[in-house]
Amino acid sequence: MFYTALIEELINALRCLPGIGPKSAQRMAFYLLEQGKTNGLVLARTLEEALTTIGRCKRCRTFSEFDLCPMCSNPKRDSSLLCVVETPADIVAIEQTNCYQGLYFVLMGHLSPIDGIGPNELGLTDLMALLTNSNIRETILATNPTVEGEATAHYLANIIRPKNVKCTRIAYGIPMGGELDYIDSNTLARALKGRLEVTE
Amino acid sequence: MFYTALIEELINALRCLPGIGPKSAQRMAFYLLEQGKTNGLVLARTLEEALTTIGRCKRCRTFSEFDLCPMCSNPKRDSSLLCVVETPADIVAIEQTNCYQGLYFVLMGHLSPIDGIGPNELGLTDLMALLTNSNIRETILATNPTVEGEATAHYLANIIRPKNVKCTRIAYGIPMGGELDYIDSNTLARALKGRLEVTE
Repeated sequence: MFYTALIEELINALRCLPGIGPKSAQRMAFYLLEQGKTNGLVLARTLEEALTTIGRCKRCRTFSEFDLCPMCSNPKRDSSLLCVVETPADIVAIEQTNCYQGLYFVLMGHLSPIDGIGPNELGLTDLMALLTNSNIRETILATNPTVEGEATAHYLANIIRPKNVKCTRIAYGIPMGGELDYIDSNTLARALKGRLEVTE
Repeated sequence: MFYTALIEELINALRCLPGIGPKSAQRMAFYLLEQGKTNGLVLARTLEEALTTIGRCKRCRTFSEFDLCPMCSNPKRDSSLLCVVETPADIVAIEQTNCYQGLYFVLMGHLSPIDGIGPNELGLTDLMALLTNSNIRETILATNPTVEGEATAHYLANIIRPKNVKCTRIAYGIPMGGELDYIDSNTLARALKGRLEVTE
């Protein structure tokens, strides 16, 4: 074929990365071989170390090489607030707003019976135990506004409310910088329904 | 910050890949941690092996873990034809046409005095030695039709011709499937200039 066996192996291995097809993988392989050797070796070693060391935070289920992630072990965070998100990437997005000081709980997915993902796979037993054994007074449901995310939020609300913990859902509405004219009617309907009184 | 130290290291390491910015690197890291552990470890090991083992073919300068690449050591290839290309990726592109059975010589770049890339960096001494010590009767210049690629082809033609080796350049012209109406006039001018007589 066009490559030696080892180059072909490298190209195939690179294709495990999300969004990388055969052409990008070839480009990456040649790039690494030509001018990225040092960085490539750092990547190889970091990847090996990360994948063998990093597990889950015992409390919030996010990725962490420690038993408790830096967020859960930070005494400055408000432990009375718990934000439930689908993925660790959602934590990053929320942290970047600089508007939230509470803790998180990561479902690592959403309810999807067709894929065999039920309450157990999302760690809801852990979540319930957490709500019982801590001083959490509000749970913010921040799953995605997709069909599955909505269903998951609905299910969560139903099991959280009996615990006497306030349960809120992040607001639906018009995204900042959008134009009403171009916003889908579903979103606009939600924005109208969720209108707030204008106070000073 | 938003990540543990090791996750941040992994994200930074992934950014050494071409075309991968901070967002894609984060996506890749989380993906590998969540569902790509096995493949990720294969990638880490293959990358390490490839980057420490793969060097250059002694004859054509392409990447290879052997002294001679599979192409150069294949007795079925026509050793009287030599195609000069800029990168190993160009070999793949030409091989995919299934129209060429000769050997290759890889410059690993093009002449670019501003970046300090002169004849020595492109291995032209090796190329000259190859032309002297083998039965090559035609050299096909297949550098890119860019300013630098053209300059390189011109330079190569000037040093190859005195060796009494036929020196050809791949044809300029209209790409298949294009529309004359939309082709730049430079290309169209070249297509006219390079017209061939229609024979049966």
